[in-house]
Amino acid sequence: MKLNKLIGDRFKERPSDCQIDSHALMVRGGYIKYVANGIFSSFPPLKRVTRKIEQIIREEMDAADGQEVLFPVVMPATLWQESGRYESIGAELLRFTDRNRQPMVLGMTHEEAAVQLVREYANSYTKYPFMIYQIQTKFRDEARPRGGLIRVREFTMKDAYSFHTSQEDLEEYYKRMHKAYERIYERCGAKGVISVKSDSGMMGGSVSHEFMLLTPIGEDSIAICKKCGYTANVEAAKSIIENVRDENSENLAEVNTPNCHTIEEVCEFLKTAPEKSAKAVVYQKIPSDEFVILFIRGDLDVNETKLTNFLGCDIRPAVIDEECGICAGFIGPVNLKVNAPCTVLFDESLKNLNNLVCGANRTDFHMTGLDMQRDVPNAEYRDFAKIIDGGICPECGEHAITISRGIEVGNIFQLGTKYSKSMGMTYLDADGAEKVPIMGCYGIGVGRLAASVCEASHDDFGPIWPMAIAPWQVHLCAVRPDDERVKSAADKLYDDLQNAGVEVIYDDRNVRAGVMFSDADLLGVPLRVVVSPRNLDEGVFELSSRDKTLSEKLDPKNAVERLQELIKQMMNA
Amino acid sequence: MKLNKLIGDRFKERPSDCQIDSHALMVRGGYIKYVANGIFSSFPPLKRVTRKIEQIIREEMDAADGQEVLFPVVMPATLWQESGRYESIGAELLRFTDRNRQPMVLGMTHEEAAVQLVREYANSYTKYPFMIYQIQTKFRDEARPRGGLIRVREFTMKDAYSFHTSQEDLEEYYKRMHKAYERIYERCGAKGVISVKSDSGMMGGSVSHEFMLLTPIGEDSIAICKKCGYTANVEAAKSIIENVRDENSENLAEVNTPNCHTIEEVCEFLKTAPEKSAKAVVYQKIPSDEFVILFIRGDLDVNETKLTNFLGCDIRPAVIDEECGICAGFIGPVNLKVNAPCTVLFDESLKNLNNLVCGANRTDFHMTGLDMQRDVPNAEYRDFAKIIDGGICPECGEHAITISRGIEVGNIFQLGTKYSKSMGMTYLDADGAEKVPIMGCYGIGVGRLAASVCEASHDDFGPIWPMAIAPWQVHLCAVRPDDERVKSAADKLYDDLQNAGVEVIYDDRNVRAGVMFSDADLLGVPLRVVVSPRNLDEGVFELSSRDKTLSEKLDPKNAVERLQELIKQMMNA
Repeated sequence: MKLNKLIGDRFKERPSDCQIDSHALMVRGGYIKYVANGIFSSFPPLKRVTRKIEQIIREEMDAADGQEVLFPVVMPATLWQESGRYESIGAELLRFTDRNRQPMVLGMTHEEAAVQLVREYANSYTKYPFMIYQIQTKFRDEARPRGGLIRVREFTMKDAYSFHTSQEDLEEYYKRMHKAYERIYERCGAKGVISVKSDSGMMGGSVSHEFMLLTPIGEDSIAICKKCGYTANVEAAKSIIENVRDENSENLAEVNTPNCHTIEEVCEFLKTAPEKSAKAVVYQKIPSDEFVILFIRGDLDVNETKLTNFLGCDIRPAVIDEECGICAGFIGPVNLKVNAPCTVLFDESLKNLNNLVCGANRTDFHMTGLDMQRDVPNAEYRDFAKIIDGGICPECGEHAITISRGIEVGNIFQLGTKYSKSMGMTYLDADGAEKVPIMGCYGIGVGRLAASVCEASHDDFGPIWPMAIAPWQVHLCAVRPDDERVKSAADKLYDDLQNAGVEVIYDDRNVRAGVMFSDADLLGVPLRVVVSPRNLDEGVFELSSRDKTLSEKLDPKNAVERLQELIKQMMNA
Repeated sequence: MKLNKLIGDRFKERPSDCQIDSHALMVRGGYIKYVANGIFSSFPPLKRVTRKIEQIIREEMDAADGQEVLFPVVMPATLWQESGRYESIGAELLRFTDRNRQPMVLGMTHEEAAVQLVREYANSYTKYPFMIYQIQTKFRDEARPRGGLIRVREFTMKDAYSFHTSQEDLEEYYKRMHKAYERIYERCGAKGVISVKSDSGMMGGSVSHEFMLLTPIGEDSIAICKKCGYTANVEAAKSIIENVRDENSENLAEVNTPNCHTIEEVCEFLKTAPEKSAKAVVYQKIPSDEFVILFIRGDLDVNETKLTNFLGCDIRPAVIDEECGICAGFIGPVNLKVNAPCTVLFDESLKNLNNLVCGANRTDFHMTGLDMQRDVPNAEYRDFAKIIDGGICPECGEHAITISRGIEVGNIFQLGTKYSKSMGMTYLDADGAEKVPIMGCYGIGVGRLAASVCEASHDDFGPIWPMAIAPWQVHLCAVRPDDERVKSAADKLYDDLQNAGVEVIYDDRNVRAGVMFSDADLLGVPLRVVVSPRNLDEGVFELSSRDKTLSEKLDPKNAVERLQELIKQMMNA
């Protein structure tokens, strides 16, 4: 199409409200339009990118024996009550009532709808395994949308659901989908996507992986082992601590620690290393307000995902008043008394340790010489700590963990029977026994993937789209189209390219070359052809690639063939 | 794909809750699954049909210089307040609040979003004309969803919006879209779609057309002139009445009409023809409750759409109590007194008439000898009547109107400046003057079109899908696949067809031929190939078409070529 007909504005100034580059470039390049917090319209260039991504996803899902279906955006609350999620999910599930006062929800995911679709059909083991998927609009009422298309409220997502008669069959299919996902990212030109073990969260199930595009602006922290290649979301990574016990245990002793409220202040005051302290972190359960006191080694942080999973409910930082008897800032495991329901937990980092500093449960006093074995003999230890940079790899045991940032661009879950069981889906096995099918689910956000590719592949002037998902394949610039030779040569090339099935955007506006080129940079089309008076004097067109790796003179006679050849190469790249 | 892997059940019994054939066949054939009132999930066969319809629509929109965009399903109420529709549309606009208590709506149409997307961009006449479109989920909270996919609450729709600098330009583009729509129906195999003039309703604007698929189960009534080909939705059709005045006017006289409450009873009692009576129809405005009394000739019905458009507000049948002074059943235009706000209107069918029967505004009394000129000298007459079968064509003036039923499968509107003006969209004209652009909008429901084609093209055993939108192109049946010859011949043909790019569904289940064929009928694939022991004895495959117009023996050697040839022919048909 002709650029002068393309709707949307392109401009140079970085919008002040854009924190990350992909957001800024998508606004500057006429890709997205803000409608409301976390809600955008797409201009044609983005729509062209997302349609190509969707087609790649569709092909890979079909190749994995997926069958495309469509679930509703608006679902009755009753469906979500069957699984229990109508109650268990927070405000991100948008609930409302229709004109007949029926409670409804907006779909943020479709496990319930998937089970509802197939539970009558899949009543015999002979129907298994199968996988269904859709590409559909979803709405998640995020508290804090951010980063343009990275974290939005309304988005287009491919979500797939597989059904199996055994865990082995699920695991085999899970591996197949893992490979399909790798191919999707590769084909979309999303370089540097790695898969990491993740926490299953509200989806249920046990094993799950996230596909992470590594970038400093990512919202997630990922633990990567430099030695063995182990990867995991920090939320899900097991923290391994070498607990070295001093040979001799000192006696417990109370010490005055005036104005020392944090563990750092106490250790500083007592000239002790934080590793030789037991700090208390206090939460309250939602909605019961019951207290949770977690003791952990002073140098470590709590992994709240692990804690939440263990407790089976949401938590928030505690509000401690005088009535509850908790002595904030001076909490210790010895002689701890709380006048309210309270769960006391111990992180594995404290196991066996002695000669620790801890709170004395008395204002302005701490204790020294805490010996966990001797003084807290009944403590049970669990892993609640956040893995740390330089920490021990849970896989190979080396001190080789590094922490990187990443954007989640897809996830796959082994759901197990959480949904099939709660929603009463069963089948008859070969021996006539009634069984509950085992499920997997597999998601990928289309807009976020587009934004992530832009984030990973851009310069100051615009996105550098991979050929397979670029809005167009060739950007044709007629510099000085008022020159009759330029106009007719460029017009002819435009026609020839279109007739050859090449997707071409043609800029024949009578504007300065600088304006033309900065617009071309913002559209990020992989190949650019310039037709100008100077080039024509030489009898050539000028060809360059958006990523600057290629620059050559094109013979007008075989320009179309050369471009087709390059497009083909770059598709496979 | 193999039929034994296709998810969804097919069965013989017509579900008792299905009023129309397409609904019953789509349930019986495993196309749709009920989720909630007016909300369905799509099984793979329907998804395949709708994807093909979407692709045809997309191609025709692109050919009409349309640019594909995407608007949100969830929009802020503020956007709809700008146009005034947040207040003016009834309960079918689903309103709710998000977690931050912001009022939001679910998009049932996207004029506001379209203007919001382009109003900064299209600030100069040089940017015009242009058209943008999307294919997206919509939600309309219908009071009475019915007929399967015919009238639903959630649906996929293509909606397009064009922007122009002159009415002439809009009209020219409108014609172009009219042609594009005709091509869409033709390509989708939706035979018998006609375009009719329609009422613009809540969309605003003046000229609009609906595309109607004529079928007895249609919800709309369409006036068609047998002489000149004039067509219009009955809602929008002008009613033309020949008002023949008697030579002599009788005097007004009160007569006792005990127990005569309807105009039919009165005419029967007085031995008068209904054409010689003036009946009163009483409404109340919403929400003001103000009365509206409309006098119309006794044999005609009120076209409430015309009345609503004239009044500029919604109406409902009146609730008449004693206080208001209206004498229900005996209302007449002479000495009418109402103790409440009231609008009195006269339909053109009464103009000039004399010697009419009408109510006397007194219980059990009517009047005879009413002369509209003499007795109601100040009456203003307007067209509020429903056009009737056998009535006068507003175009050619002949008594040649017939009334047919139809399903609306698309509509196009000349919107004018309703949205651009209210939402402050302007551009600078060539002479530097600020102008308001003129809009058109163009809608087509994808699921409804699929259901309509099914309604128009089916038999008792299933849909008869046109080739262009059929879920598959060839249905291959291996009858007696336990016969090794059958299995290997059919497997080979399946592979060959797939390699040739033919969309084939392959039934190699070890079931009776009857089960196979009734499943094939329900899937409605245009071409069916049967491989059976008997056929192989003859050295042939058996080919037939779903519409029974074709039946031939296929030479296995060139079966693929013959099928490809037929597919090509049937695509163009």
